[in-house]
Amino acid sequence: MNYAIIMFIIGCAVRVEALFMLLPFAVALIYKEPIGFVFLPCAVLFYTIGWVLSHRKPKHTLFYSREGFVSVSLSWLILSFFGAVPFVISKTIPSPVDAMFEVVSGFTTTGASILPDVELLPKSYLFWRSFSHWLGGMGILVFVLVLLPFSGGQSIHLIRAESTGPQIGKLVPRMQRTAKYLYTMYFALSIIQLIFLLGAKMPLFDALCDVFGTAGTGGFGIKSDSMAGYSNAIQNITTVFMLLFGINFNFYFYVCTRRFRAAFAIEEVRWYFIIYILACVGIWLNMFFVGMDPSPDVHHIAFQVSSVMTSTGYATVDFDKWPEFARLVMVGIMFTGACAGSTGGGIKVARFVLFFKQFFVKMSSLLHPRSVKVVKMDGQRVDDEVLQTTNAFFFIYTVIFAASMFILAWDNMDFTTNFTAVAATLNNIGPGLAGVGPTSNFGAYSDLSKIVMIFDMLAGRLEIFPMLVLLVPATWRRNG
Amino acid sequence: MNYAIIMFIIGCAVRVEALFMLLPFAVALIYKEPIGFVFLPCAVLFYTIGWVLSHRKPKHTLFYSREGFVSVSLSWLILSFFGAVPFVISKTIPSPVDAMFEVVSGFTTTGASILPDVELLPKSYLFWRSFSHWLGGMGILVFVLVLLPFSGGQSIHLIRAESTGPQIGKLVPRMQRTAKYLYTMYFALSIIQLIFLLGAKMPLFDALCDVFGTAGTGGFGIKSDSMAGYSNAIQNITTVFMLLFGINFNFYFYVCTRRFRAAFAIEEVRWYFIIYILACVGIWLNMFFVGMDPSPDVHHIAFQVSSVMTSTGYATVDFDKWPEFARLVMVGIMFTGACAGSTGGGIKVARFVLFFKQFFVKMSSLLHPRSVKVVKMDGQRVDDEVLQTTNAFFFIYTVIFAASMFILAWDNMDFTTNFTAVAATLNNIGPGLAGVGPTSNFGAYSDLSKIVMIFDMLAGRLEIFPMLVLLVPATWRRNG
Repeated sequence: MNYAIIMFIIGCAVRVEALFMLLPFAVALIYKEPIGFVFLPCAVLFYTIGWVLSHRKPKHTLFYSREGFVSVSLSWLILSFFGAVPFVISKTIPSPVDAMFEVVSGFTTTGASILPDVELLPKSYLFWRSFSHWLGGMGILVFVLVLLPFSGGQSIHLIRAESTGPQIGKLVPRMQRTAKYLYTMYFALSIIQLIFLLGAKMPLFDALCDVFGTAGTGGFGIKSDSMAGYSNAIQNITTVFMLLFGINFNFYFYVCTRRFRAAFAIEEVRWYFIIYILACVGIWLNMFFVGMDPSPDVHHIAFQVSSVMTSTGYATVDFDKWPEFARLVMVGIMFTGACAGSTGGGIKVARFVLFFKQFFVKMSSLLHPRSVKVVKMDGQRVDDEVLQTTNAFFFIYTVIFAASMFILAWDNMDFTTNFTAVAATLNNIGPGLAGVGPTSNFGAYSDLSKIVMIFDMLAGRLEIFPMLVLLVPATWRRNG
Repeated sequence: MNYAIIMFIIGCAVRVEALFMLLPFAVALIYKEPIGFVFLPCAVLFYTIGWVLSHRKPKHTLFYSREGFVSVSLSWLILSFFGAVPFVISKTIPSPVDAMFEVVSGFTTTGASILPDVELLPKSYLFWRSFSHWLGGMGILVFVLVLLPFSGGQSIHLIRAESTGPQIGKLVPRMQRTAKYLYTMYFALSIIQLIFLLGAKMPLFDALCDVFGTAGTGGFGIKSDSMAGYSNAIQNITTVFMLLFGINFNFYFYVCTRRFRAAFAIEEVRWYFIIYILACVGIWLNMFFVGMDPSPDVHHIAFQVSSVMTSTGYATVDFDKWPEFARLVMVGIMFTGACAGSTGGGIKVARFVLFFKQFFVKMSSLLHPRSVKVVKMDGQRVDDEVLQTTNAFFFIYTVIFAASMFILAWDNMDFTTNFTAVAATLNNIGPGLAGVGPTSNFGAYSDLSKIVMIFDMLAGRLEIFPMLVLLVPATWRRNG
């Protein structure tokens, strides 16, 4: 294990975080919130720590996937820890575990909160909370890669460990340029949403926080009723942009480079929209058949399905009060999630497409043992390596899900609450059903359960393997 | 597709079922129940039908796994249909869907019932219901193979399609002898249990039904309170034998042939007992920590864990009233299930062992990309083919699980009830939690939901692929 380079990368990431802490400090200055001035000393302290860790470049640049995993998972843990410090110092969230839960929920773009009333939080802290979504959405280390020159070998392992989905599409041969492209598109799309929201007369501060939560598919609201109090126009703009940020960014890359045919040939994106439409129609039908009049709710259905499927977690209505089939659809799309290579969470549509394709190939080989078929996606044969990793992912995902539920069960909450609490954190959604529904929060759980869910949020965002690598003793052997 | 041979096999199976219908007729004679005399004309009619289907041997003996799957799944459907006829004619269960649910629940050794009070059923019907567990447990077509001479090629595909677990251990080179060995051991173990139960002063009729339900890991009781009213001795004997019938029958084969080292080297059996003990201890601790006094309940815990893990479903206490962690343990062991090659249901311990091994191999290859490791079980390398099938099984299992829940949700019952109803039927357990807990029944569901659960029970018992093959159009092409 190349500890020197891991320390260097973490140091760089901490410096970037420290610089970004000046933003909530600026908000505190603008809104004259003395309680928010604490961000300044924190920023100075953390920048110093980051500088100590990264002031000289390591000599050995040996860097494999193992180093990539450890750099990414340790960075996320440490950045979350530093990010939580201002909350604890200012006593806005006095409990360290609660503060860590809230900040991990931010960076991992989960949006699950332990706060009973978010409107009590000062604006600077609301800003920091929401901004963490934006930073976490596209990836913190991917952002560091945009700023700093790394050699190619490091970039690919870092991007692979931090990006979502079963395989990272190599957009351009040099990975560092991929990082730049990704952030450019991400930034541009955020700006466009901001312009639309301001056009719909949303106050600037609210619009910024809305964009951060939408772009990162995070979902921290700055109001107690999440998005319910805003106008239909603002809600609809958010619906559309949540969906847009849940699309595989390869799509935008192809569109920007005028390769429209390639863009619209991405199978995952097609399935993503098919699932979205099916979910909306199913919920509408269920409401209709149980005798509710769903017509005034159509835009709420569109909003909620977009919000949960992309793992954002904003709410305009309490979907916990919907009939059972509709509630189950919401739970279902918590698992399918958004596209690979997007900022969204969940298992990802691409993985489901791969599962189904593998299954059909298997069925075909059972019926016609002599024929040989291979799994193809977007016209190309999928590597066995990718399929094996996808299957291992699915299994270990299930194991982590079950293990988390077993620990949460000791708090003696009901099955639905525990099930959806794990589903909402491991898939980076935010709200679940029953005790953790859209109008409730995660504050009732014990510290142990919160720590488990902190792990789940990080495992969900980093797609499990980087977090597990931390727990394997073999990782820490110097000459392993 | 070789339709002639499939028809022949189904005909043989129907004849065997018709002969066995004479048993409940005998029970009706003994207990002087005129309502049970209906079994005689049914037996005569079905034997005739079976004879028509199978009176001449087909010329072409071409038989592949596809024919094996179709023979097995169609046989199970048709035998269940014929098995349900006496219930409908006698109006003991007037609704055809309910009767089909009950009989499929019997043959698949599920033990889920739509009857609010089982004690209202005449003894002959109780006997038939319980006997279907015994027949379904080790496999109906495996039994047919014991009686009739088939060529080797047919036997292996039939046994493979009907047996449980990721691979069928070839005990002896000739598959037909394997079938004989299996049923000899099954019969012997059943007799031993019967002797023990009679020794504990259980009435003969009750003891027979108890043995049928235990041996097949079915769980239909003949009392409203399942096993709660019997003595501790009877309950403990049942606990032990449920566990014994959940063991891979390869174990008994090795023991009988004095290959003790091979017997105790079966990894799956070891894990089976480890999971059993962990589950019992976990439940005990949970009761202890929530302030219940679990000491008088120790033998109930041992009974319930044995009952649910082996997918039997007998009850001595209402585990739905246990604290949340204990309830979740019960749900967890519904999924792990018993050993492959046993009469038990669930995903099977062997599959979980394979999943974990694949995962560790994957982790190791992530950490050490240049090393090549293979998955081994019981000292032998596991074929890639077996791993792929196991992975496809796990995925399609999840899909069927989710799809079933989506249909059940239209009945607007709560999430816990729907989740555990599917878990209890797809894993062939019997009772779930909440609305389908040990003291409730499945009668409240709509006919559509019952049909879905009928499919789930069959898919669970036959391990999904044979049932899915029925649904694939390619199966029915004559020259496919």
